[in-house]
Amino acid sequence: MIYGAILAGGVGARMGGDKPKQYLSIKDKPIIVYTIEKFFVEKEFDEVIVLCPSMWVEKTKDLIEKFIPDAIEKVVVIEGGEKRNDTIMNAIQYIEQQGKLDDNTVLVTHDSVRPFVSHRIIKDNIEALKQYDACDTVISATDTIVVSEDGTIISEIPERKKMYQGQTPQSFKAKKFKELYMSLTEEEKDILTDGAKIFVIKGEKVALVNGDTLNMKITYPYDLRVARSLVEEEDA
Amino acid sequence: MIYGAILAGGVGARMGGDKPKQYLSIKDKPIIVYTIEKFFVEKEFDEVIVLCPSMWVEKTKDLIEKFIPDAIEKVVVIEGGEKRNDTIMNAIQYIEQQGKLDDNTVLVTHDSVRPFVSHRIIKDNIEALKQYDACDTVISATDTIVVSEDGTIISEIPERKKMYQGQTPQSFKAKKFKELYMSLTEEEKDILTDGAKIFVIKGEKVALVNGDTLNMKITYPYDLRVARSLVEEEDA
Repeated sequence: MIYGAILAGGVGARMGGDKPKQYLSIKDKPIIVYTIEKFFVEKEFDEVIVLCPSMWVEKTKDLIEKFIPDAIEKVVVIEGGEKRNDTIMNAIQYIEQQGKLDDNTVLVTHDSVRPFVSHRIIKDNIEALKQYDACDTVISATDTIVVSEDGTIISEIPERKKMYQGQTPQSFKAKKFKELYMSLTEEEKDILTDGAKIFVIKGEKVALVNGDTLNMKITYPYDLRVARSLVEEEDA
Repeated sequence: MIYGAILAGGVGARMGGDKPKQYLSIKDKPIIVYTIEKFFVEKEFDEVIVLCPSMWVEKTKDLIEKFIPDAIEKVVVIEGGEKRNDTIMNAIQYIEQQGKLDDNTVLVTHDSVRPFVSHRIIKDNIEALKQYDACDTVISATDTIVVSEDGTIISEIPERKKMYQGQTPQSFKAKKFKELYMSLTEEEKDILTDGAKIFVIKGEKVALVNGDTLNMKITYPYDLRVARSLVEEEDA
């Protein structure tokens, strides 16, 4: 079984206050809907799990019903966890509750605020999981990467050709993820905020999958501006 | 003396073929002109040296005359070198020819394709050089940074809070830069494409200066799109 998981924030993420970015709209449609659509149309996914803050679960279901009514049967919306990896664990727990968790269960996790992920990238993630237990979507670093231990003086400027910027999807054999995650101490869990890093730390191979500069994360206001112009261009 | 240096490419950079990005226009004004303006208005600069491909020297002078006629006396346009550091060395050679190279000569080098650099960033660079021989403008890494030695499997995912993305300006005590550069082997020169890295490799302290996400590098077509919308917003 191959599952998609759209990570849209956990229980504590921005309760009250601002609307989370994934619910902002591009051309009258929330970003998260674009992202769900990208996963929904992939035939290889048996099911797509959307994980969002508890107070957004019903709203997200409503959005799916409104914008992608066909998706209701293939897309499930559940609550995320406290941190990113807890959220992934919630997805795995859901799979387990369905009695579908085995050694070959693949989970393709993706940021809800990366609506421009392509079919090619998702396909390459699934393909990589035929050979490896985990993969990470990356692009070559466009900027020089600088390391500073103390935030004041440069410690190192590593060779740029070895440096990549992480995107998503990150894909995992779900059972393996669970095993590795359960073996972490609380302290390790605090530090290891990145799913792929758990595999790396535990000595497991994580394959690189080529991302795309277009597969951008909507973080800053100007990202939203770019995203809007990209969608307008697609429509033109 | 404090010099600004706008790095706009060397002798071999894109001879023929496409127009270099820094000569593309945003609202009818070439990007490089925006960048030169930012440096020209800084009172602390005694002179601003623009280094560009040989075939663009006259054109660049014409652009300055057309768009910033006041700048003619403070801005000089000369040919860049083969690589980035050669270009910086050309700037230093120019300063030396003017008889102005001493232990306190400061050179603030900046990418011509970062037109949104702010007064604050330039000021902080100059300030940092009062205490250090070099500084580098950076922002905290927004993406997870991934290291791969072989381009296939992840070697390491370093702790994100220690990782920064390099921007410019990079500022140097010019004489020190020259000394360090002259001490490099040809092989080292090939590898060390980043000016600040020369200082790091040679065990010299390089201070971090806070950049800004707005101080973006115009690399991809969508960067140009963002840049255009930023300029339109400023005008609005």
